[in-house]
Amino acid sequence: MEEKPLILITNDDSITAKGIAQLVKSMQPLGEILIVAPDKPQSGMGHAITIHDPLRLKKSKQFPGIEAYTCSGTPVDCVKLAIYEIIKKRPTLLVSGINHGSNAATNVLYSGTMSAAVEGAIEGIPSIGFSLMDYSWDAHFDMFEDSIKTITTQVLNHELSQSIVLNVNFPKVTTKKQIKGIKICRQAKGNWIEKFDKRHSPAGQEYYWLTGEFVNFDNGTDTDEWALENQYISIVPIQFDLTNHQQIEELNSWSLND
Amino acid sequence: MEEKPLILITNDDSITAKGIAQLVKSMQPLGEILIVAPDKPQSGMGHAITIHDPLRLKKSKQFPGIEAYTCSGTPVDCVKLAIYEIIKKRPTLLVSGINHGSNAATNVLYSGTMSAAVEGAIEGIPSIGFSLMDYSWDAHFDMFEDSIKTITTQVLNHELSQSIVLNVNFPKVTTKKQIKGIKICRQAKGNWIEKFDKRHSPAGQEYYWLTGEFVNFDNGTDTDEWALENQYISIVPIQFDLTNHQQIEELNSWSLND
Repeated sequence: MEEKPLILITNDDSITAKGIAQLVKSMQPLGEILIVAPDKPQSGMGHAITIHDPLRLKKSKQFPGIEAYTCSGTPVDCVKLAIYEIIKKRPTLLVSGINHGSNAATNVLYSGTMSAAVEGAIEGIPSIGFSLMDYSWDAHFDMFEDSIKTITTQVLNHELSQSIVLNVNFPKVTTKKQIKGIKICRQAKGNWIEKFDKRHSPAGQEYYWLTGEFVNFDNGTDTDEWALENQYISIVPIQFDLTNHQQIEELNSWSLND
Repeated sequence: MEEKPLILITNDDSITAKGIAQLVKSMQPLGEILIVAPDKPQSGMGHAITIHDPLRLKKSKQFPGIEAYTCSGTPVDCVKLAIYEIIKKRPTLLVSGINHGSNAATNVLYSGTMSAAVEGAIEGIPSIGFSLMDYSWDAHFDMFEDSIKTITTQVLNHELSQSIVLNVNFPKVTTKKQIKGIKICRQAKGNWIEKFDKRHSPAGQEYYWLTGEFVNFDNGTDTDEWALENQYISIVPIQFDLTNHQQIEELNSWSLND
């Protein structure tokens, strides 16, 4: 009998989030599960790792019958602890999410959910990050169950090129019927136009809350933003080699060694 | 008379680090300076932003005669506060560093120094991150002063394509004469082999320190790791579009919409 694949599950919204519960439910028929997730929300932590503080790792009973741990650090810390301390080997697959909120376009860079998946790919593990365009804690994830299984099964069946991560985003829809399908996309160009909400503490000290609005500056119909606006599930294959190879030739024409 | 370019300087080692002092010294002849840097070390913070806590911003007297602020958040928070709250416009150039420690290869992903520069590029600002292959707080930066000026002047003189950041790393050398020159490179393939140092608190609770060793798995002679090992200054042009465009065709052949 074939051994069941070992699937490592993590996220950035913490082990108590509804999104990770959906992912655990979707993965259970597909393999053996190990969960290592943050013990508190770690949204917006990007690829941060914890080097100036110690890390704590605790067994969790959040999912009865499933081996699960919480970690005091970032999503990337969770992946490193899972691989180098808990199982001391590579899982067959890493899935991260489901994030409460979109990680399309440049949001991928700020995302703890996606950075955990990228860390998996750096370690040579086929990795998928899932996110839903809905920030609410009570978002509805169940209608994406079939799509999660389809995408995950395809990754398990294909040789997903090492060093590639799938950034999967689900559109905000109210019924499963509204989902138009799955589209392979490129990352849209856009950024956050920030507004800092300046306040004063009771003691009179100034402080700021980061707020803002994401603006899509990309008119392409092949982007993740377009797909999501048009009720498709978007998949962007992403990489962690940040080199812009085309630019190398241009830079070689500069006067850097005169 | 031509207006002096406005240069935004940040880092991740905090405003008191020797590396940022060198960068301020090197930039002073080139333009008007604004410094917004973390109030404490923020190494390994990657592209993290602060969304669950308020941010504090304070005027700093660290550099007499130069407008400077410290921020309680991450390097990326510093860039956002500079652009959207302090100057409410784009500076001509953003420089980040000089980091105490290499940001070559995949280290670029964990680096607060480089993520600040990437944030600048997302905002359309020509951006450069500088790092030295020496973690010590008392590292010697002065021998790179001419190279910093050369690279910065070239960026100011050329149309650096928007969306491109330069990841500049300096080799660990003891005299300026040992520097062989500047090489345009691609990001080497490698990763950290982690070791968690498990300890017990006086109360008997387990905790871990993240330690490890970076291993270069790339034999290419066109990589940043090769250049640094051979005493060249490495420059990798990096981008924040993480899409692996070659992989899109492959993924379109999968059975995702059957």
